[in-house]
Amino acid sequence: MELWFSENHTKNVRLSIKVTKQLYSGKSPYQRIDVYESKEFGRFLTLDGNLMFTEKDEFIYHEMMVHVPMAVHPNPQKILVIGAGDGGVIRELVKYESVTKIDLVEMDKQVIDVCRKYIRGTAKALDDGRVNIEYTDGLKFIRRRENEYDVIIVDSLDPFGKGEGLFTKEFYGTCHNALTADGIMVNQHESAFYKNEAVAMVRTHKKIKEAFNISRVYQAHIPTYPSGHWLFGFASKVHHPTKALNKVWGELGITTRYYNPKLHCGAFALPTYVEDMLKSVE
Amino acid sequence: MELWFSENHTKNVRLSIKVTKQLYSGKSPYQRIDVYESKEFGRFLTLDGNLMFTEKDEFIYHEMMVHVPMAVHPNPQKILVIGAGDGGVIRELVKYESVTKIDLVEMDKQVIDVCRKYIRGTAKALDDGRVNIEYTDGLKFIRRRENEYDVIIVDSLDPFGKGEGLFTKEFYGTCHNALTADGIMVNQHESAFYKNEAVAMVRTHKKIKEAFNISRVYQAHIPTYPSGHWLFGFASKVHHPTKALNKVWGELGITTRYYNPKLHCGAFALPTYVEDMLKSVE
Repeated sequence: MELWFSENHTKNVRLSIKVTKQLYSGKSPYQRIDVYESKEFGRFLTLDGNLMFTEKDEFIYHEMMVHVPMAVHPNPQKILVIGAGDGGVIRELVKYESVTKIDLVEMDKQVIDVCRKYIRGTAKALDDGRVNIEYTDGLKFIRRRENEYDVIIVDSLDPFGKGEGLFTKEFYGTCHNALTADGIMVNQHESAFYKNEAVAMVRTHKKIKEAFNISRVYQAHIPTYPSGHWLFGFASKVHHPTKALNKVWGELGITTRYYNPKLHCGAFALPTYVEDMLKSVE
Repeated sequence: MELWFSENHTKNVRLSIKVTKQLYSGKSPYQRIDVYESKEFGRFLTLDGNLMFTEKDEFIYHEMMVHVPMAVHPNPQKILVIGAGDGGVIRELVKYESVTKIDLVEMDKQVIDVCRKYIRGTAKALDDGRVNIEYTDGLKFIRRRENEYDVIIVDSLDPFGKGEGLFTKEFYGTCHNALTADGIMVNQHESAFYKNEAVAMVRTHKKIKEAFNISRVYQAHIPTYPSGHWLFGFASKVHHPTKALNKVWGELGITTRYYNPKLHCGAFALPTYVEDMLKSVE
């Protein structure tokens, strides 16, 4: 017997992962949640059948979401994380001694509960004393905040369907308000290779560009995401994403497997076809 | 009806592409050759069932194989290309006015004939007057050459089976001899994410490091290759891969869709886990 999980990256291309067994399947008020075990990727989480992350390559996504803004901001203390109930972003954040408080806003408590039980490698960080979890809608939560966070990390779903609210002009404006005078926002920014994502990616860049003084896109190789070439948005009021890079980040003693300061700068050097797409709306 | 081409990237993960139709299927003295048409990737070539390239993403691979060494060498005139019967590498090379002669060594004439007929976007460059095609074994051909080429590009198969001869210490030594005093060799260098390729990648780096004064690895995002994170080897007698980068490359008027000089430098900024693998044999 062979059991395969498949995800269509477009109607015409799909990635399939051989599954050892299904560890969990449930339905929350918001979505269907599944956890599978596989030989190649370890355990992996899907929401409504869409792959969220695998144990084997989640370090790439989570390190790149966190260390890029944290290595630029000179003294990141108060952090807001939207989405990311799996705890991967939190695991990277709690490596920083400067951090005093992390507000994690996750709509679906069941995602957190399932990850706590089945995917300890990311979820155990949720027990850190600096973490405060709010089970509510990110958009609602942030409307009430002003001049409060040094860094905001938006670990959203794709902008097709449920995740759409975290890709609006209004949302980026409220993030801008919720940040301190030199705050930084980072978001998952889709990818540029397949048409649907590329269209969403460009649209997102345009909106962030309108809300922030500095807005740049950076990239990472994430094997289980569509095309493997994933993009992130870096939006900032003051600090430049590479010129303001902390020159002594290496001395903080933070261990990483993907991120390093040289790669930080390289990640902002995008392929010409991606630069051209971004420029078309700048 | 649905027709899908699938390639196993490991025993436990596979990429599948929906096929519109099969355009060609034949058997040469060396291998089975197939050309398919697809909506997502255009036409694509497989050898013995292994995907070689698709029309949609071949520009990434071919630009990164060619422009990285060509933007470092100060005056690349005579070029040797091993493999690459599809013509993709040649198409990028003939953009350089400095190039006076290109020797293309391809064992399998039928690959060239098939590409000429079905994949004109790469193969049409083979008609350039500077191109000389030799239908022979790359290893045999290069043994007779000394101090002759400014740049050698090794567009080989994987090092598992038929492609193995182009991943030996002896082969890299003969390349070194065939290069001029400031020559550069670039080769496809597998990837670091899945175990089998990672082992081959590290072994290859060790051998090149022993044969060349300067040896660095660089990366690109190639969606249809295993993990999407592909590596290339840059081996040089004199010129450093980033410090010696031609500062006026942009003025040559060469059009690219992936490569640009900023990305050139970024491509050498590798993830920490890849750097660690490379250092383990340095």
